[in-house]
Amino acid sequence: MDVGNFRAMLEVQWAKGNFVCVGLDSEFAKIPDFVHQGGNSKGATIIAFNRAIVEVTEDIVCAYKLNSAFYEAHGDEGIVALQQTIAHIHAIAPSVPVILDAKRGDIGTTNAGYVEAAFGFLRADAITVSPYLGAEALRPFLERAEKGIIVLCRTSNPGAGEFQDLLVSGEPLYRLVARCVASEWNKNGNCALVVGATYPDELREVRELIGDMPILIPGIGAQGGDVKAVVSAGQDSRGHGMIINSSRRIIFASRGPDFAESARQETEKLRDIINQCRENI
Amino acid sequence: MDVGNFRAMLEVQWAKGNFVCVGLDSEFAKIPDFVHQGGNSKGATIIAFNRAIVEVTEDIVCAYKLNSAFYEAHGDEGIVALQQTIAHIHAIAPSVPVILDAKRGDIGTTNAGYVEAAFGFLRADAITVSPYLGAEALRPFLERAEKGIIVLCRTSNPGAGEFQDLLVSGEPLYRLVARCVASEWNKNGNCALVVGATYPDELREVRELIGDMPILIPGIGAQGGDVKAVVSAGQDSRGHGMIINSSRRIIFASRGPDFAESARQETEKLRDIINQCRENI
Repeated sequence: MDVGNFRAMLEVQWAKGNFVCVGLDSEFAKIPDFVHQGGNSKGATIIAFNRAIVEVTEDIVCAYKLNSAFYEAHGDEGIVALQQTIAHIHAIAPSVPVILDAKRGDIGTTNAGYVEAAFGFLRADAITVSPYLGAEALRPFLERAEKGIIVLCRTSNPGAGEFQDLLVSGEPLYRLVARCVASEWNKNGNCALVVGATYPDELREVRELIGDMPILIPGIGAQGGDVKAVVSAGQDSRGHGMIINSSRRIIFASRGPDFAESARQETEKLRDIINQCRENI
Repeated sequence: MDVGNFRAMLEVQWAKGNFVCVGLDSEFAKIPDFVHQGGNSKGATIIAFNRAIVEVTEDIVCAYKLNSAFYEAHGDEGIVALQQTIAHIHAIAPSVPVILDAKRGDIGTTNAGYVEAAFGFLRADAITVSPYLGAEALRPFLERAEKGIIVLCRTSNPGAGEFQDLLVSGEPLYRLVARCVASEWNKNGNCALVVGATYPDELREVRELIGDMPILIPGIGAQGGDVKAVVSAGQDSRGHGMIINSSRRIIFASRGPDFAESARQETEKLRDIINQCRENI
């Protein structure tokens, strides 16, 4: 397997029936007390918690996703926790890609700094980016052929439609974004899109527009997305193509000493439902 | 003066004729060798460089802007440099607001992490955000009435128009963003917009739409924006309302021992030209 190539790593996981992406949105306040590490170190506690989750789930996931906001909230200590968690994932699960969910995007020369942060310092395999500045600005990301560049398309939040649904020549903006990314931005075959599980109709439309390009689908579980509708709408021509993210429902499934075991059970449950839905469609 | 309130701090600076925002895009490789601190510490070098620039410019600027990408590229060390620089600015120039140029934006609950990072840990007075997820998602930012929430509208990059110029019911998307922010998002009077100096026509249109809301205008100098056109197009009804950013042309004006003095001279020059343009219009 081509470790280090995001798309190739995904394909290997999909072939094993792994479509669940575990979101390590590891809010300190929600981490069980007995995981807390000495010396008042929030960073060490977050790292220990993440490591425990990764150790018990690595054989049944297609990716891990770390949302940068939860780590940046703790300043430099949080950035170290982010880096160390990614290093642990690469060590424990070298065949599972890591997505940095950072929704970045600046003008071209400045994006070089974000590219260095995400792929150099943090060693992520993929990053989420905002489309608002256009492909020209995002070139430093798009040029990284071995990485995954996951562009926001139709996000999972209730107010996503404010701009994303605006009609441009009769077609909603998110469809234009999907079309542009698939037909123009994806020259290196490294692009993917974010479409929320909370919007299965939009997900189906996007899938019809983009062929077999991967879709990162957040919003299952705590946000209310329905698995059956998501799989029906989101799978590609091979029944693959989905990175279905669940965060809180998995990592905070239990606050007891069985938290890691419970996280595995929730991951397995979601994995099984996804695969049943794939077979039934 | 109401130190800690972004808009009030800006007003005080504008009343003094200060419209230049110095962008501390302090790329390590461009910092003069003799500023380098011992122990191979890039962070300490960046902090020392920034501090020297701030000390000589603080009486003639309306704000400092730190683009997060240049700091994140150095991992946790860069985050410490960012935090320390902001702390130095608050100490040296307590009446000058600090803008964190981070172009953030996630779903609502997650944005709480970015709010904590920007305003809690880093102690910035304002942040740039992306509009793509809509006002509902950005609420954790918009609720911070004392901070500046600066929304991307028409960015300075050559390819800005790819999505920003798309026509929605005959009107370009960036105008819709400007209109929404001015009429709906700005309930706390804490919003501003980003419009690039490289697009004076669009700047004029946006100013006509938004009344006296502040506009952060990057792209002067190295990116080619023309000061006269910018002031003519960007000033509000009082000849204020502009945060005109210049980064490289000021902070890297000289690589010699006079780098700080040269930075002041460039800032003064830009300040004078802006004020001449304001008077001539």
